[in-house]
Formats: sequence, structure tokens, C-alpha cells
Amino acid sequence: MSGLVVWFTGLSGAGKSTLATALEARLKASGQQVELLDGDAVREHLSKGLGFSREDRDSNIRRIGFVANLLAKHGVTVLVSAISPYRDTRSEVLAQASRKLEVFVDAPLETVKERDVKGLYAKALRGEIPHFTGVSDPYEPPLSPDVHLRTDLLSIEECVERLLETLDEREVAA
Amino acid sequence: MSGLVVWFTGLSGAGKSTLATALEARLKASGQQVELLDGDAVREHLSKGLGFSREDRDSNIRRIGFVANLLAKHGVTVLVSAISPYRDTRSEVLAQASRKLEVFVDAPLETVKERDVKGLYAKALRGEIPHFTGVSDPYEPPLSPDVHLRTDLLSIEECVERLLETLDEREVAA
Repeated sequence: MSGLVVWFTGLSGAGKSTLATALEARLKASGQQVELLDGDAVREHLSKGLGFSREDRDSNIRRIGFVANLLAKHGVTVLVSAISPYRDTRSEVLAQASRKLEVFVDAPLETVKERDVKGLYAKALRGEIPHFTGVSDPYEPPLSPDVHLRTDLLSIEECVERLLETLDEREVAA
Repeated sequence: MSGLVVWFTGLSGAGKSTLATALEARLKASGQQVELLDGDAVREHLSKGLGFSREDRDSNIRRIGFVANLLAKHGVTVLVSAISPYRDTRSEVLAQASRKLEVFVDAPLETVKERDVKGLYAKALRGEIPHFTGVSDPYEPPLSPDVHLRTDLLSIEECVERLLETLDEREVAA
């Protein structure tokens, strides 16, 4: 059976990588073949030289999708953590996976600006980073995600439990 | 156990894709998880916009290597068919795979020019394709490939048998 693609989308700082990493650990502990494709890391390997225009972002997302689907085809559960701000591009890429979950990692802009773990929002607000999602570039939230997690209201552990329950319901039990 | 990366290198028209496809069929028939990454197809998905300068070729080969190693990590036998003309770049990419075979698909330039299945050599010789390996761009043959196949002397079937024997010797039996 082909593997599942679990696609985490959301603003920078919303908690995508944190949740994907926590889920990865739980799935690995249960013996599954799991691969986490982190948008930033994959960009370094597959999309050096691309910027943050819509066209370049879309190319990067399509490349991540291509790799995710290749792995899933061989039974690997693939967790993708990528801002992936454009609704149509996410839909296009996820349409190629035979089994997938779109996870909206959602925190209000005010919350992620306050967290600002990497100091990027402060820079973006000072105009030092052009094309910064949520500040100077759009983010199009999913209209009907498979899982919608408000990370300002739920703990990491609660979010992971919600994800595991959903995987379980869809018979891809952890 | 991690999967094997079988890397087919050689001139355009030497028979890389033909052999990789034939080997893929044999390995699939024996129940293995196999993925064939064809240089031209992968270039379309991962390296649109890149050209054929040394830098761009190297980027493309590194991307193919990144994907091949990801798949191999999950137990997939990965067959890569790519001209991959630069020795150092092939070595660099193959060094990242824990189990690998470098296969030199070798036919004299005169032979591949005569075959010219895609009509590319004729064009390149007329100067219509810049950076064409073997005509206007270098090809650095492996110095000690794991398998060296002279496709002007051996049949496809003989080459595939040689490959299967080598896989077998290395206990990755088909």
C-alpha cells in the first residue's frame, strides 16, 4: 500500500516543524518508515537559487511534492513541513498523492509575531525581508483542511494526539 | 537495511536508460521495491531552468543524488540513469549512499554517433546544441567502476546478466 503524505501548512512560527518532528518520533517509535521533509532543508538541496516570488515558491513546493510522492509510492509515511502559502499549488501537489492529509497549523499573526523564534518577523516588519509570508506576501489558508490545529490554543501534545487520532481513523494507525 | 543505489553513467546513446529499464523489470519481477530515476525526467521535475554548464549539471546531479539517497534510506533499490559527466561530482554523490554500484555504460563515441537514436549528435556536430557531452563538453569516464559494460560488444541481455551477477555477489540478489 502506498504511504501517506501529511502536509503541514501555515505561517512561519505557527509550529509546523515542531509538530511534524513530534509526530515523526511517535510514528517511528511504532515502527513505521517515516521521512520528514522540511521546507527550509529541502530548499537547500533542491531549490538553491530560487527566491520567494510566487513562481519560485511554487517550483519549490512542486519539487517537494515530487519527492514526497516518490517516497510515498514505496510505502513511506512522508511528513512535509512547508509554509506553502498558495492554495492552488498545495491542491495541485496533494492531488498527486493517493493518500494524504492536509494539516493547517494555525496561529494568529499576532501570536507568531510575538513568538518570533527566529527574529524573522521583526526583520520583515522593518522591511528587511521582502516577500515575507503574512507580512509582505500572502498566505492563503486551506478552506477544508483534514486537520485544523490552533497552536495558540492547544499544546503540542494535544495537537499530536489529534493527528494520531486522525491517522487512526483513516486506518493508517500509529 | 538501506537500499542500493545503482548509478548508470555514460554518453548519451550509450544505453544507460535501456539497461536501467531492463534491470528495473527484472528486479520488480523478483519482488523488490525499485525506482528508476531518469536524468532527463528528473531534470524536468527538479531542475527546470538549469542549463548545461558545469555548475548547472552538478546541481542537477546533486539533486538526483539527494533523492536517490532518500529513497535508498527506506530500502528502495534506486537505479539512476544520467550522463553525469564529471568524475568528482559522481564520487561526491555516491559517497553519500551506504550501498552503491557505479556502472559505466560504455560505447565508443563513433558508435553512439552512428546510433544517434534521438538525432542529437547530428545536431551537436552541426553546432546546434552547445555543451553537448562528447562533442562540445567533456565526459570523464569512471576510473574504477563497479561494473564496466561495453554496449557495442555485449547484448542488452548480456549486460543485464552481468548486472544481476554483480548484485548477487554483493548479496543484493534479484
